[in-house]
Amino acid sequence: MAYEHRLQRRVEFSETDAAGIVHFSNFFRYMESAEHAFFRSLGYTVMMRHYDPPLGFPRVHVECDYKSPLRFDDLVEVHLLVREKKLKVLSYLIKFNNLTADPIVEAARGILTVVCVTHAPDGRLVSIRIPHEIADRIKVAPAEFLR
Amino acid sequence: MAYEHRLQRRVEFSETDAAGIVHFSNFFRYMESAEHAFFRSLGYTVMMRHYDPPLGFPRVHVECDYKSPLRFDDLVEVHLLVREKKLKVLSYLIKFNNLTADPIVEAARGILTVVCVTHAPDGRLVSIRIPHEIADRIKVAPAEFLR
Amino acid sequence: MAYEHRLQRRVEFSETDAAGIVHFSNFFRYMESAEHAFFRSLGYTVMMRHYDPPLGFPRVHVECDYKSPLRFDDLVEVHLLVREKKLKVLSYLIKFNNLTADPIVEAARGILTVVCVTHAPDGRLVSIRIPHEIADRIKVAPAEFLR
Amino acid sequence: MAYEHRLQRRVEFSETDAAGIVHFSNFFRYMESAEHAFFRSLGYTVMMRHYDPPLGFPRVHVECDYKSPLRFDDLVEVHLLVREKKLKVLSYLIKFNNLTADPIVEAARGILTVVCVTHAPDGRLVSIRIPHEIADRIKVAPAEFLR
Repeated sequence: MAYEHRLQRRVEFSETDAAGIVHFSNFFRYMESAEHAFFRSLGYTVMMRHYDPPLGFPRVHVECDYKSPLRFDDLVEVHLLVREKKLKVLSYLIKFNNLTADPIVEAARGILTVVCVTHAPDGRLVSIRIPHEIADRIKVAPAEFLR
Repeated sequence: MAYEHRLQRRVEFSETDAAGIVHFSNFFRYMESAEHAFFRSLGYTVMMRHYDPPLGFPRVHVECDYKSPLRFDDLVEVHLLVREKKLKVLSYLIKFNNLTADPIVEAARGILTVVCVTHAPDGRLVSIRIPHEIADRIKVAPAEFLR
Repeated sequence: MAYEHRLQRRVEFSETDAAGIVHFSNFFRYMESAEHAFFRSLGYTVMMRHYDPPLGFPRVHVECDYKSPLRFDDLVEVHLLVREKKLKVLSYLIKFNNLTADPIVEAARGILTVVCVTHAPDGRLVSIRIPHEIADRIKVAPAEFLR
Repeated sequence: MAYEHRLQRRVEFSETDAAGIVHFSNFFRYMESAEHAFFRSLGYTVMMRHYDPPLGFPRVHVECDYKSPLRFDDLVEVHLLVREKKLKVLSYLIKFNNLTADPIVEAARGILTVVCVTHAPDGRLVSIRIPHEIADRIKVAPAEFLR
């Protein structure tokens, strides 16, 4: 059972803005990459077309606190931790560590809360329980990691 | 004294994702557009190069709750309301109303909290009081609008 | 019969990069907006779900020449002109005029070439003739406009 | 002396659009990543702040031909080749190979042409010769690679 995933990415020029730093909206793209890599590490993709009907994990709540800017070419560790696991909902804490800074600094900290959904016969999205084979591989991170 | 701003925008194809809906990160770009339009409506731009040293309003906290997806070509009202005003900090509530939906639905609701900063002589960003001529034009929205 | 469309847009902060100018990739998003607005002006959307099977206009070739940078808050006229019309293909010339510059300058000039496609029964995309009711509303711009 | 660089990247969800494929504008972001990785492989970054005045390489012409769509989670090889080297100008051919497809297919092919510039004392950008220590490390790829 897994409760975390780490990935590194280098800030791309197209992710910066005229203030010379990573545009704040791009931290959410980074969070999503980490979520997808976490699922991939468990043997799944977040777009589960092999389920019938297909499953997805749309976001219901996201947030981010910004502490120190990221700049072009900075190497960033995106550290995802499972902070909540309910029948239909997963919530992640994501810490952004700037590995280029000396000493390493936490650049930001975000939350990504997703709900498991499928399509009802009439086309509407309805929330459903996370399938057992997925839920069984995921657990909440130890409390000391979530501080 | 102003406490709100409304703008309309049509969802662009490049803002959608493979789930057929607006990518969740783009709601933050919409929020920023509304913030900048609000400042423009007051006679300012958010990049205040005419101050010496120049001012800026980086984000310290943002969040968004997603209720109903937005799709390509949907017409969206982005309604910004001032929810907090402190000496150095402004916080906005932003409601996204899908005007294409019938009846109109609130697609999402976000918060954007920014701090007034300038560059210290050594190059670091330091928070400062919002200049009077700006602060004097902004007030917090009536409580009933912030529900 | 129409051969052009003009739209204005103000450069958003999230479209700039750390060089302080609009990221070169975003000119293609602007081109697409103009294409979509052109179709909308004809009474169509580019995602034609009401056809059976649905039609689309994926890009086969695009290009852009950059002449003068665009900056945050600049007001830009995106001027689309039909430069080629074939049975299955439309090609547009798009001129970007910076209306904030004094005098107005052409910031860039792009080409967008699209092909009309549908899904074959086996799921593959196949090119088809542009439907008559669309093709009949579009003509190539006079040569002097395409210089 | 180097004439090529290869990098792999996995298509991120935020790079797709409602047609279920990578938005065409994002191929230009991929091209830029490859260009920057190429410079990094030579020991440089494209933002050369250590030169006085600083150098940059803005785009003057870019283009892309699209052959086969890229989808979420596809693994893509971005293969950059130097196709032209002049005193002030570098031009790259970039081939996109979809490694997830079986057999591997060329998804697209692009061109990125950049010019070496610096700031004149009056603030305007002026084109200058590429510094020798950079130019000396770069050569045009053999003709058979550029087909």
